[in-house]
Amino acid sequence: LAEKKVLIVYAHQSTGSFSAAAKEAAVEVLKSKDCSVKVSDLYAMKFKATATAEDITGEVKNSEHFRYAEETKLAWDEGRLSADITEEQRKLQEADLVIFQFPMYWFTVPAILKGWFDRVLTLGFAYTKEKRYSNGIFKVNKTKALLSFTTGSQETMFSPTGINGDMNVTLWPLQNGILHYCGFQVLAPQIFWAPADATPEGRSAMLAAWNTRLQGLLDEKPLFYAPMDCFDCESFQLKPESVEKCVKEFGPTAGTHCGKPLPPNNQMKAGV
Amino acid sequence: LAEKKVLIVYAHQSTGSFSAAAKEAAVEVLKSKDCSVKVSDLYAMKFKATATAEDITGEVKNSEHFRYAEETKLAWDEGRLSADITEEQRKLQEADLVIFQFPMYWFTVPAILKGWFDRVLTLGFAYTKEKRYSNGIFKVNKTKALLSFTTGSQETMFSPTGINGDMNVTLWPLQNGILHYCGFQVLAPQIFWAPADATPEGRSAMLAAWNTRLQGLLDEKPLFYAPMDCFDCESFQLKPESVEKCVKEFGPTAGTHCGKPLPPNNQMKAGV
Repeated sequence: LAEKKVLIVYAHQSTGSFSAAAKEAAVEVLKSKDCSVKVSDLYAMKFKATATAEDITGEVKNSEHFRYAEETKLAWDEGRLSADITEEQRKLQEADLVIFQFPMYWFTVPAILKGWFDRVLTLGFAYTKEKRYSNGIFKVNKTKALLSFTTGSQETMFSPTGINGDMNVTLWPLQNGILHYCGFQVLAPQIFWAPADATPEGRSAMLAAWNTRLQGLLDEKPLFYAPMDCFDCESFQLKPESVEKCVKEFGPTAGTHCGKPLPPNNQMKAGV
Repeated sequence: LAEKKVLIVYAHQSTGSFSAAAKEAAVEVLKSKDCSVKVSDLYAMKFKATATAEDITGEVKNSEHFRYAEETKLAWDEGRLSADITEEQRKLQEADLVIFQFPMYWFTVPAILKGWFDRVLTLGFAYTKEKRYSNGIFKVNKTKALLSFTTGSQETMFSPTGINGDMNVTLWPLQNGILHYCGFQVLAPQIFWAPADATPEGRSAMLAAWNTRLQGLLDEKPLFYAPMDCFDCESFQLKPESVEKCVKEFGPTAGTHCGKPLPPNNQMKAGV
């Protein structure tokens, strides 16, 4: 069995945090499973978050009307992306599994991690108009990706009857719009509910559960997304025959719900 | 009639962009309506996106286990937040209307704007455990907020039967989780669908429609969110009597949908 390569993209400022402990647990368990593990510690690296012309070495094509996607596509073609982006792209290309470990800030990733998505997942490297979703670029290597994060709010607040709304809705733009879009197989998220409000025993129990999950992580089935061939290739609407096939009591996914109730836990559990 | 104050938080790298034109239209129309208009041009300001201990002047309370929300709360209490954060907070506090103008990157705001949310909307200043949602801090001044953005994808892709999923789902974490959470009255988003793929006439028409909308923007009704008193104050779940009242054919909102179909356009149109 070939050694599996894991990349952990980690975004917390403090080595004393619960996020740091969750990251350390992943490093230890996956190494014990004979994985090679790399960590991109974004705050420690002082990772640049903002998408600017400085991400391109040498001249940009159109400085008057600078368009980030087009300019980075060109720079990627010509090997002129900045060294920090190139290095992250190399790690990502080698990985069999990518774990994003972060505290949820404002219902999504912290800006430093959003900057990693904006700058590393460039046009050409991570997606093209032709290679998206289930035809996505990372489909070829069957790369898996997983969001592992802490919340400030209790789980009840993130339910379909809670004030924060259904966590499946909050996860859709991240998991479908970024990870599935690039062709990653999206594993169920690892959610640590409000560890700051938990007892020390509660936090230990959360880490123990993560430890247990990590043992079998690489064999987990990914979440379901309606495959590309269910959609019309011009309008990107579900084809009539797919609607007939996919849409019964629920819509097919949390986002493409077809006006039906959302399939419960579509963004949280595999096989639903 | 007192002069209205408008803050435009603008995130595009290029003065030649469609986003720049949309921002300029807002400045011009709102000034012609006797508003005073300020623009925070994030790329021009080289706005710092990452949430770090440097955002606090002087000592942090716990450098071993640095917690951003708690540390910035303390610094805000004591007037020790960094000058760039304090300046943005002052502009925000004075504003009657805030417009966020940006190109959608990966189904949400670019990292530089996420950094503005992460760093400016600090605990104490923008929310507390007691003051959230319809009891939120910006409720007091009836501050309005609006997302105005361009997409890369066509509108059909962002429908309930489209491959990107329902735009209402994508907007929920931003509009509910950030804007409504802080007590802003959220105006319907201004969405410029794929201007890069439009003809010059198409782009002009989009700007003309925005111009027209801007004329009456300050009198628009905000989007609907279920008010705080519909929720149990411990569990933050919809109360049984609220479920009975709010939940008929649809759930009350895109997030708090109660397992029912999402109310169409809940995050896109007022009065639905």
